[in-house]
Amino acid sequence: MLLCDIGNTSYHFLDDFKSYKESVNSFDPSTVDEKVYYISVNAKVKTILDGLTNWIDLSEFIDMKNYYETMGIDRIFAVEALSDAVIVDAGSAITVDVVKEGVFRGGFIYPGVNAMEKTYANISPALSYSFNFECELDIMPKNSQDAISYGFLKTLYSEVISHDMPIVLTGGDSQELKKIFKDAKIDEELIFRGMKKIMKKANIC
Amino acid sequence: MLLCDIGNTSYHFLDDFKSYKESVNSFDPSTVDEKVYYISVNAKVKTILDGLTNWIDLSEFIDMKNYYETMGIDRIFAVEALSDAVIVDAGSAITVDVVKEGVFRGGFIYPGVNAMEKTYANISPALSYSFNFECELDIMPKNSQDAISYGFLKTLYSEVISHDMPIVLTGGDSQELKKIFKDAKIDEELIFRGMKKIMKKANIC
Repeated sequence: MLLCDIGNTSYHFLDDFKSYKESVNSFDPSTVDEKVYYISVNAKVKTILDGLTNWIDLSEFIDMKNYYETMGIDRIFAVEALSDAVIVDAGSAITVDVVKEGVFRGGFIYPGVNAMEKTYANISPALSYSFNFECELDIMPKNSQDAISYGFLKTLYSEVISHDMPIVLTGGDSQELKKIFKDAKIDEELIFRGMKKIMKKANIC
Repeated sequence: MLLCDIGNTSYHFLDDFKSYKESVNSFDPSTVDEKVYYISVNAKVKTILDGLTNWIDLSEFIDMKNYYETMGIDRIFAVEALSDAVIVDAGSAITVDVVKEGVFRGGFIYPGVNAMEKTYANISPALSYSFNFECELDIMPKNSQDAISYGFLKTLYSEVISHDMPIVLTGGDSQELKKIFKDAKIDEELIFRGMKKIMKKANIC
């Protein structure tokens, strides 16, 4: 048995021992013989998987009344994994979701690290810098690199900490964001944890 | 006598009666016979103006020890206009600068409205929305348009109000941002006010 979290660029698998990724462009899901429990934000891949009987879509086991229709299924499974937290999932977008007493309370979407670096560079070549994640957030910047780093990071930080709840980081850029959210916990398998919880609830493992 | 604030896309003039704009691409500054006191963030235009004796660059009258070398000259003149404020200049970028007791305390740069809408749309077609400036910022969103509107606006809002100072809005999108910063003052001629102040200080008018 495998678990798989499918994004826009990769299949993220978890077996009994490890997690690993395969590219959406090159991987052929029909080569897998095992049973795979999956979620997918990728509509194109979802269509392919609908024709494979050993790939089982876990989104069907979610009680959607707590969520909204266009909400990414990966956000929903991250929320299902926890009872009280602000979840910061830092990928191509950074999604921030609040769960209190096991109930989703809403969330917002902020651009991811790469997207935002490109945004600044496109506004003006004078703003073409990599972010400085060591940037001091307690004093207002007096140089260009810190002015954009602070603009990207401190605004996100101020909003997230205003909820005064434990912060859980996941996603590809969680190590970078940990430099800002020093008290946050990193949980790289948060979505898999949500998938396992839903499977247990639904008695399918 | 004219004042002129030159950006990446336009010459913004102020005469005794009104302010008006001319396109950087089509306007020929040598057609102006009057004396023009100007600032320019546009290096290309600056080079042209260096050859015209009736165009006088006001940046030379600034004491740069309070600022940093790569800081946009428009930000500097906005800061010079005020003594105690958070200045939010909403153009292609949104610059946020703090001035206390007449001294620049630092500032940051956030992407402008158009740049940020494009950023979300580029991350995923599912995030291609115009921002909802009427979006409720006191409760976490439960729909996609508000999730990105909140992501763009509430993060900026939380940071700006944390300074607990009067907020002054200027720039092309100041009317939109006023919907979020309800107590802020709009001052569309803030940079011209800074230019006049510097001219008075330097006894050149």
